[in-house]
Amino acid sequence: MEIEDKFYTCEEVPRLSFQDAKAMQLIADEKPVVLTHAHICEPALKWDLKYLLEHIGDAEHVVFASCSNVFKYYDDQKIKFCPQFERPTEKLAMTFKEFYQRFNNWKPGEKKLYLQQSLSSTVGPKVAADFVSFNWLWLTNLQKLVNWGALTSNLLLIAAKGGLTPVHYDEQQNLFCQLIGQKKVTLFSPEHHNRLYPHPVYHPHDRQSQVDLSKPNFSLYPGLRHLHGHEAIVGPGDVLYIPIYWWHQVESLNTHPYTVSLNFWYKAPPADNISYPLLPRQEVVIMRNIEKMIVDVFKEPSQVDHFFQSLTLGRYT
Amino acid sequence: MEIEDKFYTCEEVPRLSFQDAKAMQLIADEKPVVLTHAHICEPALKWDLKYLLEHIGDAEHVVFASCSNVFKYYDDQKIKFCPQFERPTEKLAMTFKEFYQRFNNWKPGEKKLYLQQSLSSTVGPKVAADFVSFNWLWLTNLQKLVNWGALTSNLLLIAAKGGLTPVHYDEQQNLFCQLIGQKKVTLFSPEHHNRLYPHPVYHPHDRQSQVDLSKPNFSLYPGLRHLHGHEAIVGPGDVLYIPIYWWHQVESLNTHPYTVSLNFWYKAPPADNISYPLLPRQEVVIMRNIEKMIVDVFKEPSQVDHFFQSLTLGRYT
Ligand SMILES: [Zn+2]
Ligand SMILES: [Zn+2]
Repeated sequence: MEIEDKFYTCEEVPRLSFQDAKAMQLIADEKPVVLTHAHICEPALKWDLKYLLEHIGDAEHVVFASCSNVFKYYDDQKIKFCPQFERPTEKLAMTFKEFYQRFNNWKPGEKKLYLQQSLSSTVGPKVAADFVSFNWLWLTNLQKLVNWGALTSNLLLIAAKGGLTPVHYDEQQNLFCQLIGQKKVTLFSPEHHNRLYPHPVYHPHDRQSQVDLSKPNFSLYPGLRHLHGHEAIVGPGDVLYIPIYWWHQVESLNTHPYTVSLNFWYKAPPADNISYPLLPRQEVVIMRNIEKMIVDVFKEPSQVDHFFQSLTLGRYT
Repeated sequence: MEIEDKFYTCEEVPRLSFQDAKAMQLIADEKPVVLTHAHICEPALKWDLKYLLEHIGDAEHVVFASCSNVFKYYDDQKIKFCPQFERPTEKLAMTFKEFYQRFNNWKPGEKKLYLQQSLSSTVGPKVAADFVSFNWLWLTNLQKLVNWGALTSNLLLIAAKGGLTPVHYDEQQNLFCQLIGQKKVTLFSPEHHNRLYPHPVYHPHDRQSQVDLSKPNFSLYPGLRHLHGHEAIVGPGDVLYIPIYWWHQVESLNTHPYTVSLNFWYKAPPADNISYPLLPRQEVVIMRNIEKMIVDVFKEPSQVDHFFQSLTLGRYT
């Protein structure tokens, strides 16, 4: 089914029961799917602000603060290459209590907050017990079935309504569990990689698109005209599979004052024997490696830019 | 001194005695220079068609035939990647006698011929004796002084007046000895590499510019506007040093019915420790290696093109 009112064509991500064999096939094929009634982390469906305030523990949490409610990720490690880079958000560390107070008492004019914290052993006993009773049996079976690597982290995300994570891709498989409130997730397959014009790999916004999907600049980014998306609206209990290297933009809807989600990130399957034609996501990996290699050789971003221009302008373009 | 009447600015290549220390410094710095009175291959100054007909031997020689008197080089091995490629010249094998007869009796409407043959042990005793009495002492000293690798070949070139070898670069150091007639050689430093838009490395015209310097297309190749050349007119006894990776175009002037030249090709100096900034010719090598690697990975030229477009369009361009 086509969804109108945006500049790109868009289809709905299928919603399937987690017991449906078709759902498993989609995951094996690295296509997005919303798993319903998955009960993967049912005990976490009660993780509202109040519950977390009481039970998540006293450790410090990573919180981003933005003037605009848009949270474009950046890699601190890469700012040294781009001295003119201005952080679009502030990265803060605070206890959950501090977060709760600022987040809950937010007033117009103040910065918006977005908590992004990996679950760790510092959580209190109740959250720990919830975590232990996740459906690990099902998760482990899936992991084996589709040949994923290790579970690397569970990222807890708490955003205000309207909060937006602009379009980017991750280098891991993601089971995205919606706990509280609703989110709209728009995905684009790796076949659309070059239509989303990622920042250079050396750039702090590596893995992020240069494109603002709300203000598409077609003359700068002509490939946008051929973009095709997949859209999912997820609510409590839904689990969205975001395949590795798939682009995605995530927006907290206004149907609840805030949203809580929990990521399960898994390492990519081990590289099997290369077969042709290469998968789009394999092309992305090659591209990333070439860019890293050239940064290693030239050190200076301006020289990297110049190199790629010399390599391609009037030759491959 | 500026030379007018072309779309790029141009300076004369210095002419220096082969005993001038400045000449050696230019070679060490990989800058072109014409060595006068070098007597490197003085015995070959008598290698006119008649003499060669008598003494070069009965082996077959490589001769290119062109409808236009332009001889753009192509690599036979790379035609398999580009099935639509049409050879701009025909590559023939013939004895010197056959060459002599066709070349000397050329009539309008017939194809122009251009002999390009490495000297080998098949030459007759007189040519062999000439070769042995080249100034090998001086050559070996130079080779040591500027740290060149092995002498790989001596290419004998025989062209009709007006014959043109379009702009390209070689991957070896070249001492270009003019024997009979005059040639105009136009050179461009590797700093101008991207202003000459080389064909892709997988293309049969690898190392050749896509640009026709006699019909510059500034909208396709805007970098041409900033091209700066070096020009040398060489006659019998002159030795032009063409530094490795320097672009050059060679034209046989009309002052003699034909030209004879002899190349001394030497391997590049061994790669020393990398120091920054990289030399333009080191950038060229990196570029070539990246392109080769990507051809190895994708096999298909159309996919190589697509890859480089994805990598750079709207990102580095
Ligand atoms: Zn993500
Ligand atoms: Zn050449």
